[in-house]
Amino acid sequence: MKRIRGGITAPRGFQAAGIHCGIKKPPGKDLAIVLSEQDGPIAGVFTTNRMAAAPVILDRQYLRLGVGRAIIVNSGNANACTGAVGLAAARKMSTLVAKQLRVSRRKVFVGSTGVIGQPLPLSHIERGLPLLMKRARRSGGTEAARAILTTDRRVKQVALYERIGGRTVTIGGMAKGSGMIHPNMATMLAYLTTDVCIDRATLQAALKAAVDRSFNCISVDGDTSTNDTVLCLANDMAANERIQDGTREAEHFRDMLTRACWSLAMQVCRDGEGVTKVVRIVVSGARSRADARCVAQTIATSSLVKTAFFGEDANWGRVMAAIGRSGVLLRPQHVSLTFDEVPMVTAGVGLGAQAERRIAKVFRRKEFTIHADLGPGAATAEMWTTDLSYDYVKINASYRS
Amino acid sequence: MKRIRGGITAPRGFQAAGIHCGIKKPPGKDLAIVLSEQDGPIAGVFTTNRMAAAPVILDRQYLRLGVGRAIIVNSGNANACTGAVGLAAARKMSTLVAKQLRVSRRKVFVGSTGVIGQPLPLSHIERGLPLLMKRARRSGGTEAARAILTTDRRVKQVALYERIGGRTVTIGGMAKGSGMIHPNMATMLAYLTTDVCIDRATLQAALKAAVDRSFNCISVDGDTSTNDTVLCLANDMAANERIQDGTREAEHFRDMLTRACWSLAMQVCRDGEGVTKVVRIVVSGARSRADARCVAQTIATSSLVKTAFFGEDANWGRVMAAIGRSGVLLRPQHVSLTFDEVPMVTAGVGLGAQAERRIAKVFRRKEFTIHADLGPGAATAEMWTTDLSYDYVKINASYRS
Repeated sequence: MKRIRGGITAPRGFQAAGIHCGIKKPPGKDLAIVLSEQDGPIAGVFTTNRMAAAPVILDRQYLRLGVGRAIIVNSGNANACTGAVGLAAARKMSTLVAKQLRVSRRKVFVGSTGVIGQPLPLSHIERGLPLLMKRARRSGGTEAARAILTTDRRVKQVALYERIGGRTVTIGGMAKGSGMIHPNMATMLAYLTTDVCIDRATLQAALKAAVDRSFNCISVDGDTSTNDTVLCLANDMAANERIQDGTREAEHFRDMLTRACWSLAMQVCRDGEGVTKVVRIVVSGARSRADARCVAQTIATSSLVKTAFFGEDANWGRVMAAIGRSGVLLRPQHVSLTFDEVPMVTAGVGLGAQAERRIAKVFRRKEFTIHADLGPGAATAEMWTTDLSYDYVKINASYRS
Repeated sequence: MKRIRGGITAPRGFQAAGIHCGIKKPPGKDLAIVLSEQDGPIAGVFTTNRMAAAPVILDRQYLRLGVGRAIIVNSGNANACTGAVGLAAARKMSTLVAKQLRVSRRKVFVGSTGVIGQPLPLSHIERGLPLLMKRARRSGGTEAARAILTTDRRVKQVALYERIGGRTVTIGGMAKGSGMIHPNMATMLAYLTTDVCIDRATLQAALKAAVDRSFNCISVDGDTSTNDTVLCLANDMAANERIQDGTREAEHFRDMLTRACWSLAMQVCRDGEGVTKVVRIVVSGARSRADARCVAQTIATSSLVKTAFFGEDANWGRVMAAIGRSGVLLRPQHVSLTFDEVPMVTAGVGLGAQAERRIAKVFRRKEFTIHADLGPGAATAEMWTTDLSYDYVKINASYRS
């Protein structure tokens, strides 16, 4: 597997563009499109939030057909909590593009991110569309990736290729993250393209597995948004034999897609709002995978733990307290804690001032791992989290001003 | 029911003191005692954290006998994650007081709050004890209340009296709150005294009910500590007929205890770390009490919602997103949201710019209520939460430096 420069337009047959159409203050790009030269299978994974935004409701409907040609995404407005009017607006976005491409609107997927509860300014999108379509080109990946951002500081892209079934298969991707990043998933938009030739159900299974092992393992602030969407659009242009479920090639492609998603997830995590540190939480010795995940998530989302990261305060007691309140049945005397290479807690008891001085050094690293072993169980889980900084509060206290 | 000045020594027959013994930097008070003239029934409610601190483990053991004479509490060190050595230290604290009082150590309850995982400096406590015992007096309530504080800014006390069974019954109390405040419960220590004559099981039931309706309805940062304890020590000195379960007097006393706990809980909430706002979350129309509580808690603990409070940003969409991700089954089109007297969402849809300008004014109030109605269900719940401010991050990033 080889990582290359580029993003969403790296695979054969994809074009993209990103422009400013007027939803954000100028000159912020706020409208992106991704186009494929031909129809292909599309897979999607969406937010579990019950207040799903209009574009999520629409994409879920379109996914029943499961054929995609284009994806249009706006930033600056989430089109969420907007009721029937919002759903009609999302449908209109899709229809406008479909008319230009002369395809069924059910092949044009829609995404939105930004403030919740404001009517979508459709007129801006409608006015911007001709320019957007005109600009769509092979080299437009980066500007599309820029146009889907909100409070993000950096563009997030990935591209990798590999030989599968004797052909070179490429995957490209772009993502938008920052606030509300949390498993299942969190104003997190990620779009992937691939020229692989693959059966639709196999693509869906691969995407589900990839998301579980990437985006669902990161947490910035514990909120899950109304708009989270990961779509993967394929277009058959690698001309490999169509990949079917249960084959070695299917597994191969799934690993490749997981790596692409993982790269985007890490970019999202490192660019989280106000983030100065990224911390990996590894839990082992749990009785079940669910227990392990629960403990990892409780540590990963504790405000006290996350402010201690920011302050570089080696307050391992807060990690212990988080483990204890996770709701998971465990014996304190079985618990051990290690910070990178330094053991701090054995059999539930702190190892004293010297160990603490050593983990204080670990806390000063930009990235480190906390390993919590819960006892004799066999289940493990892993989460990536960040610190909670002044800037997180600042960015989120004044998001709309 | 009448609120009076004073605290833990307001009921007949109680004395208290608080001194600096050397656990905190001077001149911070760090050791408190509450003494009753005679034995009486004692009730307790403790943290659900599985990493329960040594004093919690010890008090739980003592509660099997259920007779109390004194409570000794230190601040500056939580005696948590300290293993068998920590448990022996807690027992020693209890024994030292018991010797002075010439009672069984099982009648001397122990509390600790402060940094987790450091050995308890018993020698300081031992050296300070003679002075502490000597200073114990009727007027010592406030200094005891001061000695149990950590990052708190204000002393938290309550005292109220009422006629029950033809006699005047008084309840006094003190609490320590601030960080980690969250249901079930959160480095939150609260001690109550009463001169009522009451059956032990009835006292325990009353305390459980009072805690559920007070301390378990507040949330500052979503963490639940290793040390949370609420104890209520009675001493029979009101000379009323002993209150038994199921009587009108039992109900009467329970309401009184609930009011005392509620007052302490609100003081804890208002004094939460970095708090500039206190917000009441009311959820109605839920299918079950558990659903209602779950939605209320998800709103109350969302970092995005809490930073919006701090920034006075009327970002009601974040409240909707929190409701949606709570995991509770609901239909968006049933949901309505009101901020104090101003409706903002009806049938899942925002009511527009004018409503938003009006709720922007509500967000500028020091205290306000968010009412989320989920639909046709009959269950309700209520939580009190706070904003998430720069100061919260500041206090917690550098807690131990």
